[in-house]
Amino acid sequence: MINQRHEIDVTLESENSNNMLAEYLKIRKHSELICSKLETEDYVVQPVEFVSPPKWHLGHTTWFFETMVLIPFAKGYDIFDPNYNFVFNSYYESIGARVIRTDRGNLSRPAVADVYKYRKYVNAAMVKFLSTSIPSDAKPIVILGLHHEQQHQELLYSDIKYILGNNPLFPKYDDLGIESDHFSNLNKWIHYEDGIYEIGHHGDTFCFDNECNRHKVFLNSFDIASELVTNGEYIEFIEAGGYDDFRHWLSEGWEWKKLTDAKAPLYWHQIEGKWHQYSLSGLNIVDPNQPVTHINFFEAQAFASWKGMRLPSESEWEVASDKFIWGKRWEWTQSAYLPYPGFVTAADATGEYNGKFMINQMVLRGASVATPEGHSRNTYRNFFHPQLQWQFTGIRLAK
Amino acid sequence: MINQRHEIDVTLESENSNNMLAEYLKIRKHSELICSKLETEDYVVQPVEFVSPPKWHLGHTTWFFETMVLIPFAKGYDIFDPNYNFVFNSYYESIGARVIRTDRGNLSRPAVADVYKYRKYVNAAMVKFLSTSIPSDAKPIVILGLHHEQQHQELLYSDIKYILGNNPLFPKYDDLGIESDHFSNLNKWIHYEDGIYEIGHHGDTFCFDNECNRHKVFLNSFDIASELVTNGEYIEFIEAGGYDDFRHWLSEGWEWKKLTDAKAPLYWHQIEGKWHQYSLSGLNIVDPNQPVTHINFFEAQAFASWKGMRLPSESEWEVASDKFIWGKRWEWTQSAYLPYPGFVTAADATGEYNGKFMINQMVLRGASVATPEGHSRNTYRNFFHPQLQWQFTGIRLAK
Amino acid sequence: MINQRHEIDVTLESENSNNMLAEYLKIRKHSELICSKLETEDYVVQPVEFVSPPKWHLGHTTWFFETMVLIPFAKGYDIFDPNYNFVFNSYYESIGARVIRTDRGNLSRPAVADVYKYRKYVNAAMVKFLSTSIPSDAKPIVILGLHHEQQHQELLYSDIKYILGNNPLFPKYDDLGIESDHFSNLNKWIHYEDGIYEIGHHGDTFCFDNECNRHKVFLNSFDIASELVTNGEYIEFIEAGGYDDFRHWLSEGWEWKKLTDAKAPLYWHQIEGKWHQYSLSGLNIVDPNQPVTHINFFEAQAFASWKGMRLPSESEWEVASDKFIWGKRWEWTQSAYLPYPGFVTAADATGEYNGKFMINQMVLRGASVATPEGHSRNTYRNFFHPQLQWQFTGIRLAK
Amino acid sequence: MINQRHEIDVTLESENSNNMLAEYLKIRKHSELICSKLETEDYVVQPVEFVSPPKWHLGHTTWFFETMVLIPFAKGYDIFDPNYNFVFNSYYESIGARVIRTDRGNLSRPAVADVYKYRKYVNAAMVKFLSTSIPSDAKPIVILGLHHEQQHQELLYSDIKYILGNNPLFPKYDDLGIESDHFSNLNKWIHYEDGIYEIGHHGDTFCFDNECNRHKVFLNSFDIASELVTNGEYIEFIEAGGYDDFRHWLSEGWEWKKLTDAKAPLYWHQIEGKWHQYSLSGLNIVDPNQPVTHINFFEAQAFASWKGMRLPSESEWEVASDKFIWGKRWEWTQSAYLPYPGFVTAADATGEYNGKFMINQMVLRGASVATPEGHSRNTYRNFFHPQLQWQFTGIRLAK
Repeated sequence: MINQRHEIDVTLESENSNNMLAEYLKIRKHSELICSKLETEDYVVQPVEFVSPPKWHLGHTTWFFETMVLIPFAKGYDIFDPNYNFVFNSYYESIGARVIRTDRGNLSRPAVADVYKYRKYVNAAMVKFLSTSIPSDAKPIVILGLHHEQQHQELLYSDIKYILGNNPLFPKYDDLGIESDHFSNLNKWIHYEDGIYEIGHHGDTFCFDNECNRHKVFLNSFDIASELVTNGEYIEFIEAGGYDDFRHWLSEGWEWKKLTDAKAPLYWHQIEGKWHQYSLSGLNIVDPNQPVTHINFFEAQAFASWKGMRLPSESEWEVASDKFIWGKRWEWTQSAYLPYPGFVTAADATGEYNGKFMINQMVLRGASVATPEGHSRNTYRNFFHPQLQWQFTGIRLAK
Repeated sequence: MINQRHEIDVTLESENSNNMLAEYLKIRKHSELICSKLETEDYVVQPVEFVSPPKWHLGHTTWFFETMVLIPFAKGYDIFDPNYNFVFNSYYESIGARVIRTDRGNLSRPAVADVYKYRKYVNAAMVKFLSTSIPSDAKPIVILGLHHEQQHQELLYSDIKYILGNNPLFPKYDDLGIESDHFSNLNKWIHYEDGIYEIGHHGDTFCFDNECNRHKVFLNSFDIASELVTNGEYIEFIEAGGYDDFRHWLSEGWEWKKLTDAKAPLYWHQIEGKWHQYSLSGLNIVDPNQPVTHINFFEAQAFASWKGMRLPSESEWEVASDKFIWGKRWEWTQSAYLPYPGFVTAADATGEYNGKFMINQMVLRGASVATPEGHSRNTYRNFFHPQLQWQFTGIRLAK
Repeated sequence: MINQRHEIDVTLESENSNNMLAEYLKIRKHSELICSKLETEDYVVQPVEFVSPPKWHLGHTTWFFETMVLIPFAKGYDIFDPNYNFVFNSYYESIGARVIRTDRGNLSRPAVADVYKYRKYVNAAMVKFLSTSIPSDAKPIVILGLHHEQQHQELLYSDIKYILGNNPLFPKYDDLGIESDHFSNLNKWIHYEDGIYEIGHHGDTFCFDNECNRHKVFLNSFDIASELVTNGEYIEFIEAGGYDDFRHWLSEGWEWKKLTDAKAPLYWHQIEGKWHQYSLSGLNIVDPNQPVTHINFFEAQAFASWKGMRLPSESEWEVASDKFIWGKRWEWTQSAYLPYPGFVTAADATGEYNGKFMINQMVLRGASVATPEGHSRNTYRNFFHPQLQWQFTGIRLAK
Repeated sequence: MINQRHEIDVTLESENSNNMLAEYLKIRKHSELICSKLETEDYVVQPVEFVSPPKWHLGHTTWFFETMVLIPFAKGYDIFDPNYNFVFNSYYESIGARVIRTDRGNLSRPAVADVYKYRKYVNAAMVKFLSTSIPSDAKPIVILGLHHEQQHQELLYSDIKYILGNNPLFPKYDDLGIESDHFSNLNKWIHYEDGIYEIGHHGDTFCFDNECNRHKVFLNSFDIASELVTNGEYIEFIEAGGYDDFRHWLSEGWEWKKLTDAKAPLYWHQIEGKWHQYSLSGLNIVDPNQPVTHINFFEAQAFASWKGMRLPSESEWEVASDKFIWGKRWEWTQSAYLPYPGFVTAADATGEYNGKFMINQMVLRGASVATPEGHSRNTYRNFFHPQLQWQFTGIRLAK
């Protein structure tokens, strides 16, 4: 949701409709570019509840513009297909019944070609809408829709990786190797003294409602690592029996470990005595110098405990974030996802955007290789349940 | 499995390889014809455990010929892709690990085009193999493979109907209306005196191992209906509160009813006060003169109890089957699926074909609109768990 | 349910009320004798769904007489406590709401002492009722109630064994060793020629409705073992890898095996390399000369398959039963539990006694060490789901 | 765990062994007093996973002293029964295998009388041990054991209430009415300005490790209610449709609501149009002036949202706690249960006491009618999963 107090600024940001139109077209195109490397079949499946079929993402982000912008604001707009609301509504209780989440992968129709027709139809209507004088209360919704689509672009990468990486044939997505940058392993500790700091979004640019309000926090003195934990360091943890030593695990993490028989991060396979990992470029030997990824909160916390350290809080992370390089892995923090002081939800459907998920989830900070350009900032609060591994997550230590 | 005692006869039946080759090509082509009306996306999904994705059926039947015929008998045959065994093995414990059944719908690859390539490749090898002198122990396996493929053609119809019929858009499969024949509702009772009868397969033609041996049974006198129960009669049962009167239901049937909140056959929907049903030709008002279908054993048994009658045993059905018309609906019997006297399983993988399923299933007799030409006979024993509704089932009463 | 056609005979059997009264008192006392060796705590627990707490058995059998006899037939009878119907109704849909089966072990009240008060109260009313002229339609219900209580005496033994035998302290029930008779292991094959035989209950004595009607069956020639399979023979099966060879198992049996990781009969434990088994007299080394027990249908069937034989049908068993000794172990047959020709259920609540369970269960014949005196006959049809092991079951082979 | 830094003080607190002995005997006796009103049967059952049988609490608290104090510190101590470790270990991974939590209610043995013998035996050994010069590293463990037993006294009340309150006979526990104090409903708002505050335990008295370290927090200005929300106010929420309006619920709370079909707090029943609630004194009409209780976090949060307010954070609560009366209901906060700055876990088994539960739980502050004398302080951090209702919880609003 757009922070209401920033509404005027947002308008300034997209001062003229042409800018917003260009931004709309660019972002919408990017979703289709991500999917352009898929086979039709890849658009359809949902191998696990938390993954959605790519065609669903393409349809859902389109439905958002149709439902939140075109229907309420664009005069004379004809709904593409009234049944699509049932199919493409994600979790908006206020906008009627919907396919239950676990059933998304059971729907062969609408076909992929129909979803692209839907996108084309809505894009045409949006272009027309954005080419005219936009009502002032529509603008923030359009901007929200664009950031929303960028969030789904990130999910598209995660979900596509899960779909292909859990296929016994291990098909590759492409050869670009976006996950394979090399990283420094010369960690340094960055020190902060105790005192009052400010966190939360400020200024005139866009943010989600959960980043507001900017507020003071008192932090005790802390040290935070300049570098992410590498695969090599994580292999040390595995080889030291980290997955078999309950002392490092939270109780629910230990239950997760026993239930899933986890022995390594997601996508890791031991083949002829060597650790391999599936990346979007296929199955390869693990590179010890790359940052470890696809670990869940339980694993991140157990690793930190094994090192005699801890994960940073989200406040510590945000305060220190201009002293280290971030943006390749979402970084688990030890902070639960809770409202900031003064947080309020919007009265309309966009009020369901963030607030209702503030329970049983942990905050991640930073961004990842899947994050689209222009979608990251150091106040961004991502959040997932502690057992989930399929995001491009990472570990930064604190002490 | 081929009944070993009929092996010679089978050879006679397909006296020259040309006949067998023609039969092979005809049957293989029919599977692809069934699928030719699908969108690519329809080949992929598995909305419920007991349904398989159409592309899986196409691959699995091909895998059967590759694994059971080409690999052991065709000299110099190169396996198409060694990973396909993992993907397309159904339930053969003797032939290695396999994708668990519930995961079939999670596999976007092999793509549909690759499955067709696989079929083409195996077909070419089979054509070459069948054009030469076939080893005598290979012939029964080829014949079994053809009957096996015909069974999957029947499942293709059931599964496609489930995939399309549970989609909120209710897409139609085609306009042929194969389910919509009109039927006489002038039932007559056919009477048999008590005495010794013979059932089970006899003669020189193919049968599955579970149809053997032909054996004597003693039957008490009985009456069996000349006609199937119609939708109109079934609506009477619904309107008389049949789904809410525990007295007519088996205990596990009543639990099924409460758990699923069933109120009518599968694919029935009450829309504006009228019963509609989804058929392969779309969603239409229920025709009271057509035979009721997509009821499970519990529903069939409850209906019979409500009428003060019962379902026939499979022996009664077989004995009387030349006195009535059958072949449009698989007909539930009151017989559990058990071995006939003297039943033995083969020592090789084909021994897993039937015998190991002889528990907790009920026998259905006859055939259905989905049964391919040449695949029905009055000794055929189909079997399903009592809660399953997605086959083209029907009810014939006895007393 | 009482077989209606035998109603007059039943009356003759219990010609005067004094006989019936004596029988009532004797049977009712036996239930309490079985429980007299328990601690109060043992009456309460329900370690698994299919086991009921002993106090529930004591209450339920009492509730049967109160509900089926006293309330409808005894003038001026005051219900002991109207809430008890909710607690002690087992599965009679026609007699109102009831505690769900899995919750029986959650009820600390009524306390054991209260259940005994309930028994005393109902016994007093029954004594009074049976001392007068009993209405002719009440007599069959009283007799049914007595046989019903005897069935629960058998369950009391099974359930008590489960409660104590799954306790980590392995407390013994008593020192009598009722399970430890020695048996001959000199098996002989008893041969029968093919032909028409009669099975089912006949004559004037009591039977359950599922034993009727006596009817003709045609049997093929068969051989049946004079002796039960021993622990020693079963250990051979275990040591030959019987639990790891899928070829001998039904498909659902194999699933059960993998799910439960079964390696031996229920109550068997390998301690320092030796097989021990818990019996009502405590944990002891397995005696190879005693008949194997606490195997389910899947295990019995797999054992028979491993021997190259099969289980007898219930008809074969009944026909041959006067040629061998039986009565120590319930013997699994290869027959599914289905209605006999002409079977009808009673219109009143007793109609729920047997018929509604005729699905997904296998027939056991004979009796067991837990069967009370006077409760066994060779037409008796016991039935359980194929995965259940906690009855005193056994294996007799046929070929 | 004892805060190590306070060890010396703890010694001072229990300066001579006589004091500690007297405290030991008093606290141990209190557990037995709570249970003295039970029937033997009530000690045994476990109607739901999160409830433990009372005899288990009695045994487990005794096991704690035996395992943590007597075995390591008391020379010549003979273990009462080595099997009891398996039965009475709760969650200490470091001390071996244990009965899985859901099986606690399946154990009829050890009998209640045996558990009391166990208590007597361990008490005698502890009296002997505490009458001599206690090793300095044993003292903190004894004190921890006493606080541990007090925590189980609170659970005893909650669990006994659940056992009796979910029995269809609604037996009362006693007539004392400890839940029925009348409360003022004249709420006042207590205001605090923003600034740095300190929270966490300080001083020389006992605390659990999770209350340390005392540390600074920055709080924004806030108002907190002087009174708890009453039943009357909660009925307004119910009658305004609060349970049917998704807008007030967290997403997982709404799922909980739909799954359980919750319409009111636990133990509430609508009987002839009036709300009744089960308390330890039986089933009675809800008193509108008493504080609402047995609501979970989801309900507390939804109520606060409906009022346009929120729950306090644990810091706010602690800071303001000397301005209002507390101690009758545990009060939900909006704080997730997380480590305080500088929190460390002990290296020995007591390190499993608190830290490993710091995920997916919400903090409750205060105390309740079930809290034993001397066991409450304003730094105490209780914690439960957000869906649990069976504690004596309450709601205090903030804004």
